Amino acid sequence: MACRVLLLAYTPSPDAAVAAAARLCYSDVSAGDLFREESRELSATLLDHLRKSGHYSPFEHASFTFAIDGLSRVTSHQLVRHRIASYSQQSQRYVGMTAPDVIMPPSVAANRELAEKFNRTVEEVHRFYSEMVEAGIPREDARFILPHGWSTRLVMTMNARELHHFFTLRLCRRAQWEIQNLAREMLRLVREAAPLLFKAAGPGCVISGECGEMNPCGRPYASVREVLDEEGV
Amino acid sequence: MACRVLLLAYTPSPDAAVAAAARLCYSDVSAGDLFREESRELSATLLDHLRKSGHYSPFEHASFTFAIDGLSRVTSHQLVRHRIASYSQQSQRYVGMTAPDVIMPPSVAANRELAEKFNRTVEEVHRFYSEMVEAGIPREDARFILPHGWSTRLVMTMNARELHHFFTLRLCRRAQWEIQNLAREMLRLVREAAPLLFKAAGPGCVISGECGEMNPCGRPYASVREVLDEEGV
Amino acid sequence: MACRVLLLAYTPSPDAAVAAAARLCYSDVSAGDLFREESRELSATLLDHLRKSGHYSPFEHASFTFAIDGLSRVTSHQLVRHRIASYSQQSQRYVGMTAPDVIMPPSVAANRELAEKFNRTVEEVHRFYSEMVEAGIPREDARFILPHGWSTRLVMTMNARELHHFFTLRLCRRAQWEIQNLAREMLRLVREAAPLLFKAAGPGCVISGECGEMNPCGRPYASVREVLDEEGV
Amino acid sequence: MACRVLLLAYTPSPDAAVAAAARLCYSDVSAGDLFREESRELSATLLDHLRKSGHYSPFEHASFTFAIDGLSRVTSHQLVRHRIASYSQQSQRYVGMTAPDVIMPPSVAANRELAEKFNRTVEEVHRFYSEMVEAGIPREDARFILPHGWSTRLVMTMNARELHHFFTLRLCRRAQWEIQNLAREMLRLVREAAPLLFKAAGPGCVISGECGEMNPCGRPYASVREVLDEEGV
Repeated sequence: MACRVLLLAYTPSPDAAVAAAARLCYSDVSAGDLFREESRELSATLLDHLRKSGHYSPFEHASFTFAIDGLSRVTSHQLVRHRIASYSQQSQRYVGMTAPDVIMPPSVAANRELAEKFNRTVEEVHRFYSEMVEAGIPREDARFILPHGWSTRLVMTMNARELHHFFTLRLCRRAQWEIQNLAREMLRLVREAAPLLFKAAGPGCVISGECGEMNPCGRPYASVREVLDEEGV
Repeated sequence: MACRVLLLAYTPSPDAAVAAAARLCYSDVSAGDLFREESRELSATLLDHLRKSGHYSPFEHASFTFAIDGLSRVTSHQLVRHRIASYSQQSQRYVGMTAPDVIMPPSVAANRELAEKFNRTVEEVHRFYSEMVEAGIPREDARFILPHGWSTRLVMTMNARELHHFFTLRLCRRAQWEIQNLAREMLRLVREAAPLLFKAAGPGCVISGECGEMNPCGRPYASVREVLDEEGV
Repeated sequence: MACRVLLLAYTPSPDAAVAAAARLCYSDVSAGDLFREESRELSATLLDHLRKSGHYSPFEHASFTFAIDGLSRVTSHQLVRHRIASYSQQSQRYVGMTAPDVIMPPSVAANRELAEKFNRTVEEVHRFYSEMVEAGIPREDARFILPHGWSTRLVMTMNARELHHFFTLRLCRRAQWEIQNLAREMLRLVREAAPLLFKAAGPGCVISGECGEMNPCGRPYASVREVLDEEGV
Repeated sequence: MACRVLLLAYTPSPDAAVAAAARLCYSDVSAGDLFREESRELSATLLDHLRKSGHYSPFEHASFTFAIDGLSRVTSHQLVRHRIASYSQQSQRYVGMTAPDVIMPPSVAANRELAEKFNRTVEEVHRFYSEMVEAGIPREDARFILPHGWSTRLVMTMNARELHHFFTLRLCRRAQWEIQNLAREMLRLVREAAPLLFKAAGPGCVISGECGEMNPCGRPYASVREVLDEEGV
C-alpha cells in the first residue's frame, strides 16, 4: 500500500562534504586541503557541534534525489508545498491514465464494505474518464473527474538542511499517514547514505524534546529508533 | 465558471516603490530622499529602462496578495509549483466538503450528454464521500475519492518580478485553460494597481516577440490588449 | 553612528491580511468575505494561535520594505545572506565614493588614539582611491582598496515570517553589534506597523525561552521590552 | 592572480539523473526503471529538447559544489546575491587575517606606480589592523579598516538550472572581471563533469543570440568556445 521510494542519486560522501564546508568557515584552511587529513571522528564532532548550535547552513551542500512511486495526488499536493526542493512529476496532461490506480487509505481498507465500494467507485469513475477521452475530451480535462487519491510519480531533490526540516514536520503523528510513510522511507534511505548528517533527524518531539502542536497526539516518540521501527500504514 | 479573483492587498504605490529602489542603486541619493522630487514621468522612464535591460530585481519590492475562489485542485496543484510565492489554501483535512463543488471543464460543458454524466458522477461520488465520513472515516481520508477537479480557495502573494515570470508562462495558450483564466484575471487586477510595473507584462509571444515552445499553438497573441480582451473559458 | 532605517512601504493592514489568510485555511469562508465581520480581538486570538503552534506560513502574506542608510559593507555582506528577501543596494561600480564615509566600530571609537588613526587611515586610503580614479582606474577596481567598513545604502523587502526568523538570529547578543542595531530599529518600526504580527518577535532567548548558542553570552534578555529599550551602540 | 576553483563534489552521473527526471514527467515509466535501458544518445536528445523549449526545471536535480579560494570580498558580496544557492564562507570574525592578502585588479597591476602604492597601502592598513587587534579590538571590528578587496574562501553549491542562469549573467563582458573569471573556471569544470547538461551554457549573447544589455560591450562572443579559450585576467 505504501509508496515506493528510491534514493536515485546523492552528493558523494555527504558527511565529509558538509564537514569540509563547515571547516572552511572557522579555520584557516585552503580549499584544496579541505578534504585532507581529517578523520571521520573529527567530522562527527564537527557535525554534532553544528547541529547542537542550530547552524544547519553547511548541511545545504549535500543533496539527495528520490524517485517516488505510488503516492496519491492528495499527498503530492502537500509535498510540493515544500518550496526549497526540486520536483519533476508525472504529467496527467501528457500521460494517459490507462487503468484504475488510486491509493486506498488504511481507514477505508479496514472496512470491507467501504473498501469494496471505494474500488467500485474508482472503476466506474475511470470508465467515465476513458469514455470522455474516447469522445475527444482532452486528457487534461477528463482528469477533473478522477479521484484525488490517484497515484502519481515524482523525482524530488532536497538538501540535507531542508530534509531535517521536512522530517521534523512530516514524521509528526499529526501529519497525514501517507506523508508520514513517505518521510519514514526517506529517513531510512538517507541515514544509510549519510549516517552522520542524519544521526539526529526525526520528528519535532524527538529532536527538540517537546511537542509544538496545539493539539498534541498524546503519543510522542521516545526515539528516532521508534520512528524507524514503526510499520508504515 | 471561471474562478473569482480579488486583489486583497498590495504594497502601496507599487510603481513608485520599485522606482525608488532602483534609483538608490544607481545614484547618490539618501534613503530619506528616495520618494521626493521625482515625477511620475521619471519613474516611467526608469522602469522602462529596467525592463528593457532585464534588470527585474527591484520589481521584487512590490508584493500583491490575491484571494482566489473556485479554482480546481488540479490547477491549485499546478499553481503551488511556483515556489517564489506564498500560499494559504483551504484545508480538506479540517473543512468538510458539504456539497458537490467541482469545476467542469469547458470541453465537457460543451457536450450536453457528457456534462450531465459528469454532474451525476460528481453527485454520486460526493454521496459516497458523505457516507464514508458518517461511517467514521476521517475527512482527510474520505477525500481520496473526491474528483481532482474539486473547487478550492487560496490566498496567494507574489512579487511583481515573479508575476512577470508567471504571466509569461501561464498566459501562453499552451497552458491549461483554467490557469490561463486565473492569470488573465490577475493581470487585469495588477495593471490597475500598478500600471507602470505591468505595462509590458504578458505571454512570452508578446513579451519576447517569439514563441519558445517546441509545439507552438500557431495563434500567437499580437498584443497584451488582445490577451486582456479575450473572454475566459 | 547607528544606521538610519525607514519603513518605506508595507502591506496595508498587515495584521488583518495575515489573519484573513489563516482564516481561509481552516474555515468555510469565501474569499470575498475574508475581511468582513471579523473583529480585531478575533484576529489577535488567531495570530496567537498560529504563533504558538509554529504555523508561520500565513505571516508571509505581509511584506515590509525598508530603506537603510549608513550601514557598513561588512554588515550588508552579512545581511544579504538572508536569501528569502529582496535587496537593491547602492552600486560602487556606478556611484563614485566622493568623500570618506566609513563606519567606525564603537570599540575603536572608545579608544581615542586608535579612533584618530582609524580616521587618518580612512582619509589616506580614500585619497589613494581618488588618485587611482583620476589616473583612469575604473571605480569598480579602485574600490578594492577602500575599507570594508565603507558605508552603503539598501532597500530591502522581507515578509513577516522571515522577519521573525531574522530577529531570532540577529537580535542575539552574539550577532555583531551593527546588525543587532539594524535589527532593533527594524523591530521598532514593524511593531508600530503591525503590533499583532510582531507582538512576540525577538531574540531566541526571549522567544524560545532558552539559548541555542554553543557559547552563550551569559546575559539573556528577559523580555522584548528590554531589547527595545536598549540603546544601539 | 585569478581565484582557484575546485569542483569539490557533484551529483553522480548528472546528465543521466536529469534525463531520468525529465523522462518521468512525460512517459509511463516506473521510478525503478528510470535509469535502465536508456542510451546516452536518447538522453542527449531529451536534454536538447528541454533546453530548446526552456523547460529547465529538471536541471535542478543535479547539484555542483565548488571550493573557491582567493576571491575578493568585493566579488563574494556580488556572488552571494545569487539566492538560489548555498554558501559557506570563511569568517573574518573567527579567523584572524595574519598576513596581507588582497586581490589586485589587473587595471592597477598594469600601472607599476599605482601597483606599488596599492601594495604599500595594503601593508600599512594591515599593520594598523594588527595593531588594533593587539590593543584588544575584536577582530570582527578591526576588519572594518581592511581593504574590500581582501581575499576570501567559500564553498558554494548551485544546481544546474541556476548555473545556466549564473553563466548567462556573469560571463557577460559587462560583469566585473573577477566574477567573469570565476564563472569561466566554473563553466570549464562543469562541462567536464556534465557535458550534456552544459553543452549550451554561456553568456547571454551566445545563448540567446542577442545582447540584452542597455549598454552593450560591442564585442559579443561568437561561441562558447571563444569564452572558454579566453585567458582570465
